[in-house]
Amino acid sequence: MKIALLGHGVVGRGVDEIIASRAKGVEVARILELPDRLSDPRMTANYDDILHDPEIELVIECMGGLEPAHTFIMSALNAGKSVVTSNKAVVAAYFEEFAAAAREHGAALLIEASCGGGIPWIASIEKVRRIDSVSSFSGIMNGTTNYLVDTMAKTGKDFDVVLREAQALGYAERDPSDDIDGIDVRNKTIIAASVAFNVACRQDIPTAGIRNLTKADMQMFAEHGRVVKLIGHGIQRDGHYAAAVEPVALPQSSLEAHVPANFNLVSLEGSTVGPLKFYGQGAGSLPTGNAMVQDVLDFQAGRRPVYDFSAGLEYDPMLLVSNYVFRTAVAPEGSERYDEGSWLVRSVTAAHAREIFTYALESDPTSFYARLPWEDEA
Amino acid sequence: MKIALLGHGVVGRGVDEIIASRAKGVEVARILELPDRLSDPRMTANYDDILHDPEIELVIECMGGLEPAHTFIMSALNAGKSVVTSNKAVVAAYFEEFAAAAREHGAALLIEASCGGGIPWIASIEKVRRIDSVSSFSGIMNGTTNYLVDTMAKTGKDFDVVLREAQALGYAERDPSDDIDGIDVRNKTIIAASVAFNVACRQDIPTAGIRNLTKADMQMFAEHGRVVKLIGHGIQRDGHYAAAVEPVALPQSSLEAHVPANFNLVSLEGSTVGPLKFYGQGAGSLPTGNAMVQDVLDFQAGRRPVYDFSAGLEYDPMLLVSNYVFRTAVAPEGSERYDEGSWLVRSVTAAHAREIFTYALESDPTSFYARLPWEDEA
Repeated sequence: MKIALLGHGVVGRGVDEIIASRAKGVEVARILELPDRLSDPRMTANYDDILHDPEIELVIECMGGLEPAHTFIMSALNAGKSVVTSNKAVVAAYFEEFAAAAREHGAALLIEASCGGGIPWIASIEKVRRIDSVSSFSGIMNGTTNYLVDTMAKTGKDFDVVLREAQALGYAERDPSDDIDGIDVRNKTIIAASVAFNVACRQDIPTAGIRNLTKADMQMFAEHGRVVKLIGHGIQRDGHYAAAVEPVALPQSSLEAHVPANFNLVSLEGSTVGPLKFYGQGAGSLPTGNAMVQDVLDFQAGRRPVYDFSAGLEYDPMLLVSNYVFRTAVAPEGSERYDEGSWLVRSVTAAHAREIFTYALESDPTSFYARLPWEDEA
Repeated sequence: MKIALLGHGVVGRGVDEIIASRAKGVEVARILELPDRLSDPRMTANYDDILHDPEIELVIECMGGLEPAHTFIMSALNAGKSVVTSNKAVVAAYFEEFAAAAREHGAALLIEASCGGGIPWIASIEKVRRIDSVSSFSGIMNGTTNYLVDTMAKTGKDFDVVLREAQALGYAERDPSDDIDGIDVRNKTIIAASVAFNVACRQDIPTAGIRNLTKADMQMFAEHGRVVKLIGHGIQRDGHYAAAVEPVALPQSSLEAHVPANFNLVSLEGSTVGPLKFYGQGAGSLPTGNAMVQDVLDFQAGRRPVYDFSAGLEYDPMLLVSNYVFRTAVAPEGSERYDEGSWLVRSVTAAHAREIFTYALESDPTSFYARLPWEDEA
């Protein structure tokens, strides 16, 4: 089977190497690169050389970003070529369009590496759904923020200090906004919700990050037996669904509370299999490359995931109702005291909690908030 | 696709129901049952009716025990029929014979449900091995013993009390020996080692259980920041392998320490994907039935696992060397004090530790021991 790589950066080179050494019967025949980087006879700067090569069955998109990735993926699918991608931003933004083009042209869309890195998460959701319906999912889906909160919890250092260390170690980007503001987790949550619930998940799910988390917050929650983690989650019930990304103050006794360093832990609840949880490296060139090659091998073995979002689940924010703690200068309306300088608001939706937080930031730009999970949550 | 069920007990009925409601294109055409239980037109007490029916491609063995399960599985494979089984005892004992018969007759052997219940563990090991070599695996593979140690840790009750409660709840058998003496975990460890390392794992791996674990032991380890769990594990390096089943005193900070109730958590280490961990229900008719139907659906989708153990890894007990704590009346030779009445023996093999334990039981039949994992263990 001949395939092409779009991009030959760190991940692309890793994929190239893994395929050459481990994937029997798969040949990286062409590589799309910039005109000034054509260092290999397989390389071309002209995407048409790949699109019009009838022998190439599949392209692996390793470029990242929305454009030209979106256009290149669409051209490949429209040409009947299957696509493997780790690009969570482009899949979250165009999942429905990609899925429709794949169905129309008999191509496959394989997105394992876009969500949960090396963890076999998307394929596992699909496998579970062959038998069960997935009633909910949740998880630590971003290694950078987990490294930050885990290091803060273990060392007692403050956010900025740990962030600078993480940047020095390569665990955080120079501009860490996508990670610490929850954008990366939002993209992954949108993708997971779409696969788990068979719906083109809306883009504007309530989203908050951990930018304002302080060591005093960590300490305050620790005194309540809790650890803060950034969690993406989704739920479906009776033809409706909801999803959100928010800091959650988890009980110390939970598995999630003990996920170390830059690891991920993602969970789902299936109707007969019960809860399943998957742990592994959520990022890094080797785990990501591994996930993309797994998708190629699945394709080679005949796996053709079909995403059809026509079931028409409706979004219902009332499916996500919890108690929330706000650490902010002015007590939110209807709140009660939780601890020194922090306030408990009972039984509000994730969307409403996000609105209270936005309002709190206006009077106190250092505000932070976290959801308190129900006792019976898995 | 027509298939047959061997046995129609709790699990068999569950499989029958899941297939009828969820597995399109799969029909349970025949069911083998005892002559006095033929309550359904599909039932027969004559196995030949199934073996000689050319339309039946696959049999699901839900009988348990070594015989006649062993004979029935061999006849099916020799007749070119594929086999799905959850029977860990028979697979652990006859894996090599089954695998050879399956290869010879072009049949598939699918054993997901034999190890880790509803957790997609065997299929995940196989998937990882398409790209990576698996250098080690370990895990909590027995729900009964995890329920016992978790309840002891949380309530401070003693072993016998918690065991009686577990029996009343149906979490432990009336004769709990297979669970509490580590036999069940040994079978699963043999199966996991065989799949992970591509070797017909030897039967007599060092095996110990938790029969002698007391609340005082739990308390003593808790004071050292540790929790006791019953762990099966295996390792391979440079053409050699080893495996063992033993109580392990894990650090409180580990994920494993927080696995609640009757859940399982199994881990592997892959060369490019890094550590992966899988959590879920390790037993129960629904998760087990789910795992067997997943195998049927995998078979329907073309999955044909091939187990070929001819690589010839050699067993090397030196691959498993650790420090061990013995709580026993007489200090073992070469030990130093660990705590009141318990002794630390440094850097011995799992096999040697098991021998020290056997010797200790002679002078003190209440003795208990646990491995202390190395600090850098995942």
